[in-house]
Amino acid sequence: MIRVGIIGATGYAGGELVRILLGHKDVEIKWFGSRSYIDQKYASVYRNMFRLVDDVCKDDNMAALAQEVDVIFTATPQGLCASLVNDDILSKVKIIDLSADFRIKDVSVYEKWYGIEHKSPQYIEEAVYGLCEINREDIKKARLLANPGCYTTCSILTAYPLVKEGLIDPDTLIVDAKSGTSGAGRSAKVPNLFCEVNESMKPYGVASHRHTPEIEEQLGYAAGKEIVISFTPHLVPMNRGILATEYASLVRKADGSLPTKEEIRAAYEKYYANEQFIRLLDDGEVPETKWVEGSNLVDIGFKIDSRTGRIVMMGAIDNLVKGAAGQAVQNMNLMFGLPENEGLQIVPMFP
Amino acid sequence: MIRVGIIGATGYAGGELVRILLGHKDVEIKWFGSRSYIDQKYASVYRNMFRLVDDVCKDDNMAALAQEVDVIFTATPQGLCASLVNDDILSKVKIIDLSADFRIKDVSVYEKWYGIEHKSPQYIEEAVYGLCEINREDIKKARLLANPGCYTTCSILTAYPLVKEGLIDPDTLIVDAKSGTSGAGRSAKVPNLFCEVNESMKPYGVASHRHTPEIEEQLGYAAGKEIVISFTPHLVPMNRGILATEYASLVRKADGSLPTKEEIRAAYEKYYANEQFIRLLDDGEVPETKWVEGSNLVDIGFKIDSRTGRIVMMGAIDNLVKGAAGQAVQNMNLMFGLPENEGLQIVPMFP
Amino acid sequence: MIRVGIIGATGYAGGELVRILLGHKDVEIKWFGSRSYIDQKYASVYRNMFRLVDDVCKDDNMAALAQEVDVIFTATPQGLCASLVNDDILSKVKIIDLSADFRIKDVSVYEKWYGIEHKSPQYIEEAVYGLCEINREDIKKARLLANPGCYTTCSILTAYPLVKEGLIDPDTLIVDAKSGTSGAGRSAKVPNLFCEVNESMKPYGVASHRHTPEIEEQLGYAAGKEIVISFTPHLVPMNRGILATEYASLVRKADGSLPTKEEIRAAYEKYYANEQFIRLLDDGEVPETKWVEGSNLVDIGFKIDSRTGRIVMMGAIDNLVKGAAGQAVQNMNLMFGLPENEGLQIVPMFP
Amino acid sequence: MIRVGIIGATGYAGGELVRILLGHKDVEIKWFGSRSYIDQKYASVYRNMFRLVDDVCKDDNMAALAQEVDVIFTATPQGLCASLVNDDILSKVKIIDLSADFRIKDVSVYEKWYGIEHKSPQYIEEAVYGLCEINREDIKKARLLANPGCYTTCSILTAYPLVKEGLIDPDTLIVDAKSGTSGAGRSAKVPNLFCEVNESMKPYGVASHRHTPEIEEQLGYAAGKEIVISFTPHLVPMNRGILATEYASLVRKADGSLPTKEEIRAAYEKYYANEQFIRLLDDGEVPETKWVEGSNLVDIGFKIDSRTGRIVMMGAIDNLVKGAAGQAVQNMNLMFGLPENEGLQIVPMFP
Repeated sequence: MIRVGIIGATGYAGGELVRILLGHKDVEIKWFGSRSYIDQKYASVYRNMFRLVDDVCKDDNMAALAQEVDVIFTATPQGLCASLVNDDILSKVKIIDLSADFRIKDVSVYEKWYGIEHKSPQYIEEAVYGLCEINREDIKKARLLANPGCYTTCSILTAYPLVKEGLIDPDTLIVDAKSGTSGAGRSAKVPNLFCEVNESMKPYGVASHRHTPEIEEQLGYAAGKEIVISFTPHLVPMNRGILATEYASLVRKADGSLPTKEEIRAAYEKYYANEQFIRLLDDGEVPETKWVEGSNLVDIGFKIDSRTGRIVMMGAIDNLVKGAAGQAVQNMNLMFGLPENEGLQIVPMFP
Repeated sequence: MIRVGIIGATGYAGGELVRILLGHKDVEIKWFGSRSYIDQKYASVYRNMFRLVDDVCKDDNMAALAQEVDVIFTATPQGLCASLVNDDILSKVKIIDLSADFRIKDVSVYEKWYGIEHKSPQYIEEAVYGLCEINREDIKKARLLANPGCYTTCSILTAYPLVKEGLIDPDTLIVDAKSGTSGAGRSAKVPNLFCEVNESMKPYGVASHRHTPEIEEQLGYAAGKEIVISFTPHLVPMNRGILATEYASLVRKADGSLPTKEEIRAAYEKYYANEQFIRLLDDGEVPETKWVEGSNLVDIGFKIDSRTGRIVMMGAIDNLVKGAAGQAVQNMNLMFGLPENEGLQIVPMFP
Repeated sequence: MIRVGIIGATGYAGGELVRILLGHKDVEIKWFGSRSYIDQKYASVYRNMFRLVDDVCKDDNMAALAQEVDVIFTATPQGLCASLVNDDILSKVKIIDLSADFRIKDVSVYEKWYGIEHKSPQYIEEAVYGLCEINREDIKKARLLANPGCYTTCSILTAYPLVKEGLIDPDTLIVDAKSGTSGAGRSAKVPNLFCEVNESMKPYGVASHRHTPEIEEQLGYAAGKEIVISFTPHLVPMNRGILATEYASLVRKADGSLPTKEEIRAAYEKYYANEQFIRLLDDGEVPETKWVEGSNLVDIGFKIDSRTGRIVMMGAIDNLVKGAAGQAVQNMNLMFGLPENEGLQIVPMFP
Repeated sequence: MIRVGIIGATGYAGGELVRILLGHKDVEIKWFGSRSYIDQKYASVYRNMFRLVDDVCKDDNMAALAQEVDVIFTATPQGLCASLVNDDILSKVKIIDLSADFRIKDVSVYEKWYGIEHKSPQYIEEAVYGLCEINREDIKKARLLANPGCYTTCSILTAYPLVKEGLIDPDTLIVDAKSGTSGAGRSAKVPNLFCEVNESMKPYGVASHRHTPEIEEQLGYAAGKEIVISFTPHLVPMNRGILATEYASLVRKADGSLPTKEEIRAAYEKYYANEQFIRLLDDGEVPETKWVEGSNLVDIGFKIDSRTGRIVMMGAIDNLVKGAAGQAVQNMNLMFGLPENEGLQIVPMFP
């Protein structure tokens, strides 16, 4: 049994980790960390866990925790993981960080977009970016894993094969993303109240959202050059789900013609044909967030617009699963040599 | 492997059966019956099943189906199961009927409340009412199983121990129930459109809903006499969940005092202490539908109101799981000698 | 022009007051009081008011305010109005208090249910309970008006004629009420977050909600005796609306028969036939909250259940309008001799 | 009093017309046309209108109707208005068509995108496109008015000043639009059921939605040349509201610099400073659909992204008001010489 500790177990991503790990046959959760609820029963915070989890919440003492478990998940605000990690801890346990601390290789980019000083820049280099479908082999060897952001997972996977194959011009890439409200976290703020979110739709973080450099860095690797994109997140009155609608100019062939839909499909299949969590939709189908709810799946569709020479790529995930806890468990499975889908064969729930 | 056939696989309860059975290790679904979608891919109807189910939909030929499977689930409108079943079929397969056809022992009551003639009254007597926590031993021996209604499951389980123990006066019982909209089914009707349901709340079927006699019959067995109750269902703008708020006068003790909360709790525990799907909440806690979403759990709480001498009993279930497909699988497990919770250890999803 | 001051203008009820009063041709709002937002633009708090309201928020200095306006609305937490009011203020302005401070005549009942000491019990006697359809003549003469609670308005009006006419036994009255989430106010608390409320339904304040004694007092006047009722509020995932489903035993006639539906209807019409804000629905119709959204209307329906001898009475209002701000304006109109519906002829918005 | 007839009064746009016109002091609705509900009470279809509208629904006999009213609104499916209108009718009444029949000047474009033959192409030339803020003077003289589409109203107004002033390159324009579900109409279809829409988000009509050529035509006039854009609508789980997020490359100045935000703001103000229904938001503010709900307002914000050289323009309307019925009434006011805002001074409702 893999012994697991969670720091930040009472946020929405932490709660989702618990839900998924309870169904993972090779895992035992030994530590439910939550500074806000120390000594309170975990099930009093998430009452869906009543009689399923008997533990009380503990503090976020990573050094103590490192003695007791094999892997630590940090589902905490930016900066916390970087402030706690050290050589001793890394020598004892694997760390899967769901925050942004180790996602961006250029520390100055991190510090600029996040507005905080990075406390452990010395570990950035070795940290592996845990987008499983892209970095699988590196992940298997990682001891410090940077779990991707929710928007980034969806945005990158939706465009990756076409960028990698040079079928689209990455500098024309525009990502218009829509997220369920669980992405805003569980903190008590007026803009997240039911009556403020319900029956409304709004953009936020326009041209300034922190997931932008993360998308740019990863798709830049695929493009083989630095790229700059437009990224606009929106808040949607639903609990879960991210839909990314992505626009880019297709790269015309030598004869001036656009790539065909068969060529686009072939590019997607080249990278995803054997991916069990990525479903390339049939021609003419578009993803809906509901069809992946509760699962680790990514649904991807596309439409070529010959009038404009652009392609519209569309991807959908559950932000708490493939966008957070599910991908974290997928990474854990890879890091511990388990079947990649262990505990993640969750059928989407509808309706 | 138990071979399963589903008639009515494209309604919401049928879809939920598929979701649950895909996670059941001893089951193989052999027949996705749906008269409306014959020869269409099941995953084109429920796109959450894309790449998870490759089958096409078949018609509802129960005789042919009986040759191929061990158990047939009928998740169909009232009257269909009764019109199809016969001795030959019953000699070959077990039938779990999610409609009301075999729930009510008095055929005249059925015909009055449902407004249709019963086509197979000869099987009513042998049919077993599949409320697992109450009729477990009979269920194990059943070949024709009447799966309880969603409102009834919640309403009965919430009050059963107190009726059985004579702690409340069953003739004062009032059940005010609230249901998510999936209970209204997947048929295309204006009152079920998003814009009609969203941001609204309404009662329906007031003093005339068909689940009333079913509750009365079952609680009547517990009371040892015929009872008449008030039952009012309401439509709530949410997908899943039933909440039953039930009121009854407590039976005073010889000294005129009311039963204590400890005595009430003891009554619940007498019947439910070992039930893995029933969670008796701690003192002062009330059930919320969200805490059981997607699971087969029943959450029950109560509050004694000494001012009025009444008790308020509250129960919550997921109408599609414990109120339909989950309980049907629980019944199947009992009927086939499997662990009762096989395929049903689903952790509720939050948020 | 009536000069209006609002203390507590940035809560949901306060915001609704502003919305309604902006459409009232005889009113000018002179004071947008909000201790939390002093000196901030009102339209920065409620951005629907951008370019419609240019004022900044002011503090809650009732003495200063009394110099400048003709009427003060207090849409504030319990206790504030009672702590501010005094003889000097009452000699200068009329006060319409949307809190509970002056609703309950017996100060000990108030102090017990609200858990606070009443700071101005000397004004309780003269305060008029502002349920317009019941107390119209007294309201016209009031200088201190206790605006009824949202649940209470709906609960009382739905049952009042039948209690008053002795058609139901008030001691059997059970009120099962369901409210949109704006009733929980605009304070930042985890249980009111979108993801906590959405897709869920729950009871709260079971057998202990503060609106209980208010309903009992008012219906007690109608019954001509003290009564005790069961009242259970529920939180519904919608912004606005209250639905009250009320159960009571009908009083049988000398010959043992139940009142007929014509007799019930006649009782309602006796009191409400000329009420422009109360719509007695046609036979067989039930109220839905959506049909009154945004308006000052009360929709009432009923169903006699001859099996149980009970009647089910159902009422729906918009909790922020007839349940708060709309009724407050209706009271203001009465107190200032204006047409009762001035500014309130709002057609419900659908969908 | 202007006598009004509505053909298609029982769709959502028709219902909204009734709501708005009931509050218009110069209007009397004489004809509630609805082929589906002939001879049924209008208030039985929209029960918010109970006791507010006593009329029954009539058929769609435009010739008969032309005898009785001064203006006819057609809120009907594409093709109907064009099939009914003739010289005689146009000589007697003004027609405001909420369908697309007369919006597009090139009949072949209409027939291609809508897939139907146009029955009255002879009237296309004289029809005036009723986007009030752009075509005000022509509207005043129109007898046949083509009321703009919901998506188009929002999309055009959000970008118009920048296209007109040459500040953005119109060929780079991408409109990612999100709509509440009332835009899908009131017909009973499975994809519009509550459980299908709720808790989900999806694109539809990708690179093929019928509002595309309408946006292109109108913005083409502003650009002074034909343009081709990308337009993607999305369905959002809310009743009302459209949010358009629009991306375009800014046209650099001679010195290579981007336009400043002051220059962008000046362009917007040049066209909209005196428009009472358009609110240009303050710097850094973004529109939310909720802030305009129920009103005829358009909220517009923008953000320059110097990293990409693009601008993000964002606009929000209520699709049923400024996107349909409200704009139709605004057009009527212009056509009849009334104050443009008569009946439209509706304060947005929040929450």
